[in-house]
Amino acid sequence: MSGDLGPRVAISAAQKFTATFADVDVILVGNEQQLLASSSVKKLSRQRISILNATDLVAMDEDPLHALRHKKNSSMWLAIESLNKNLADACVSAGNTGALLAMGKYLLKTIPGLERPAICKAMPVEQGQTYLLDLGANTNCTPENLHQFAVMGKILASATNSNPRIGLLNIGTEATKGTDVIKTAQELLQNDSRLNFGGYIEANKIFTGEMDVIVCDGFHGNIALKTCEGTARFIAKKIQATFKQNWLARLAAIIIWPLLKQLRNELNPSMYNGASFLGLQKVLVKSHGNSNKKAFVQALIVAREQVIQNVPARIQAEFLAQPIFHQQ
Amino acid sequence: MSGDLGPRVAISAAQKFTATFADVDVILVGNEQQLLASSSVKKLSRQRISILNATDLVAMDEDPLHALRHKKNSSMWLAIESLNKNLADACVSAGNTGALLAMGKYLLKTIPGLERPAICKAMPVEQGQTYLLDLGANTNCTPENLHQFAVMGKILASATNSNPRIGLLNIGTEATKGTDVIKTAQELLQNDSRLNFGGYIEANKIFTGEMDVIVCDGFHGNIALKTCEGTARFIAKKIQATFKQNWLARLAAIIIWPLLKQLRNELNPSMYNGASFLGLQKVLVKSHGNSNKKAFVQALIVAREQVIQNVPARIQAEFLAQPIFHQQ
Repeated sequence: MSGDLGPRVAISAAQKFTATFADVDVILVGNEQQLLASSSVKKLSRQRISILNATDLVAMDEDPLHALRHKKNSSMWLAIESLNKNLADACVSAGNTGALLAMGKYLLKTIPGLERPAICKAMPVEQGQTYLLDLGANTNCTPENLHQFAVMGKILASATNSNPRIGLLNIGTEATKGTDVIKTAQELLQNDSRLNFGGYIEANKIFTGEMDVIVCDGFHGNIALKTCEGTARFIAKKIQATFKQNWLARLAAIIIWPLLKQLRNELNPSMYNGASFLGLQKVLVKSHGNSNKKAFVQALIVAREQVIQNVPARIQAEFLAQPIFHQQ
Repeated sequence: MSGDLGPRVAISAAQKFTATFADVDVILVGNEQQLLASSSVKKLSRQRISILNATDLVAMDEDPLHALRHKKNSSMWLAIESLNKNLADACVSAGNTGALLAMGKYLLKTIPGLERPAICKAMPVEQGQTYLLDLGANTNCTPENLHQFAVMGKILASATNSNPRIGLLNIGTEATKGTDVIKTAQELLQNDSRLNFGGYIEANKIFTGEMDVIVCDGFHGNIALKTCEGTARFIAKKIQATFKQNWLARLAAIIIWPLLKQLRNELNPSMYNGASFLGLQKVLVKSHGNSNKKAFVQALIVAREQVIQNVPARIQAEFLAQPIFHQQ
C-alpha cells in the first residue's frame, strides 16, 4: 500500500512476476476494497494472486517505533506476519525502511547467535556484482557485528561463487588506517578460516570487482551507496545535456541511442533493486521506495532466489556450527 | 621529489603556473643535482623558478610519524619549513598525505582556538562547486570539531559566495537519524548565527549543489570522495566500451568526441585537484599523488587563491572573535 508510488506498482509487478515464474504465487497485502477497485487488479489471474485485507498502513515518514507499537493492522505488519503463519515464504515491501526493519526484527526474530541483522544489496561492478553490507540497519557496529556480517555476506554470495572474496571497507589499506573497530574487525576476519578474506578495501575500489562481498557499518555503507547513486545521476544528467548540445550531438545520440539504452539498463538501479534484511529467520526484502514495476519485480526475484537458496536456514546453520562471541 | 610520478610533473607545472600568473614565483624543493640534470629544468626561466636543495625525501608509503621524526632534510620538510622562514607563502606537494599533514601540523601549527585541521576539497556539482570537509585528516571527530570545520568551510566558500549554505552529512534527514556526534553537531550548527545552516544532507544529494559546504568527519568524507571517484571511473569505462561496440558506435563516438572531451574536462578530477589543509597557520595544499601537469597546476592555483584570500588569517580572526569551546 505504501512506497512512493502506491500499490499500483506492486500490483503490476506481481502480475509480471507470476507470469515469469511458474513456481510462485503472490499475496497482495493491503486495503482489499481499494485494491479490488483498481483496474490493474481486475486484470490479474486471481488463481495465483490473492489479496489479504489490511485496514491500516505505515506512512513513509512514520517513526518506526510508532509504527511498531500502533500499526498491527497495517499492510506491512500483516505481510510480515504472514511468514510466521506459513502463508508465505518471503515478504517484499517498498515501504518505510525503518518500520520494516523494526517489524521484521520483532515478528520474524533475529537468527540465534547473531546480534544484529544487516541490510545487504548487490552492486553492479566491472565483472558481475559485489554484495555490500550493512547499508544502514546499524549506525554503530562492533567488530563482532562486522564479523557476523562477513559470514552472512559469504553465504549470500556463495549462491553464485563457491569461495567469495570478502573485503573490509576502510579509508586506506595500511594497517594504521581506520577506527579501532575496523582494526579489530580486520583481526577477527583474518583469523576466521571460513572466510576468504582479502583485507581492507577503499571506496574507490568497490566497483573493480576485486571483492565479492564488502563489509562495513551501516553508516559507511549508506554513504557509499548514496554517493554512488548521486554520482551516477549527476554524470547521467551531464551526458544527456551533452547529447542535446547541438544538431551533430543529437545525430550522435540517435546513432548511439540503442547501445546507451542497453548500458543504462545494465547500470540501472532497477536491475539491482532488492535489499535483503539478512539475519532474520525468514526472507524479508526491501524494494526501493520509488521502485517502478521493473525494479519491484527485481526485488521479488531477489526474494525468490533467497527462498530457493534457503538463505536464513544456511545462516542459522553457520552460526550454530561456529558461533561468533562478543568479546567484552 | 615524490608523488606517484616524481619531480617531472612538479617542474612542468611550475613552468606553466609562472607563465600563467605574473604574480607568482616558484621554489622547487628537492635534490638539486637531480633537478638540474632534468631536461625540463634546463628550459625553465630561472629568474622566477629557483631550487632549494633537499638531500632526502619522504616515500609515498612511509609511516607519517617516522617521516616526522627522521626526515628533517627531506624535500617535504624543507618545503613546509620555507613558509616559516618567509621564503614562501604557500606549499604544494603531491607526496605522502599523512606525512604532509603531520609535518604541516608540527611546523606550521594549528590556528589557536582550533582543535584540528581538516582536509577540504571542491567537488564539481550541478551548478558550480561544493566544498567537502573533512576528507580524511580526522578519523574520529567530536561535534565541536565538526562545528569548527563548518566555520572554516564557510570562510573558504565565501570567496565566491557571500553567504554559503552549510550542510551536515548524514544517512537521513530525519532528526532521529545519525550518530550522537552528528546529532549534537546539528544542534551546534543550528545555534551558530554566523552560519547559514541548511541541516542534514544525504550523500546522494552532494552533487545537486543545494549546499555550498558539506561537513563530515574524515572517515565519512573519505568514503564519499572515493566512492565518487570509483563510480565515475566505472561509468567512464562502461561508456568507452559502449562507443567501441560496433562501427555505428564508433561513428557516433567520432561525432560526439569533441563534446565528450569537453565534458570529461569539465568533470576531470584534475580540474578539482588541490586539497587544502584548512586550519594551519599557513597555506598548505595537497595535490593528488598521481597528478599530471594540469592537475598539479590546479593545486598551485588553489594555493595562490588561498594566499590572495588570506584564508589562514581570516580563519584565525573568526576563531578569535567567536571561539568554539569543547563541551565535556
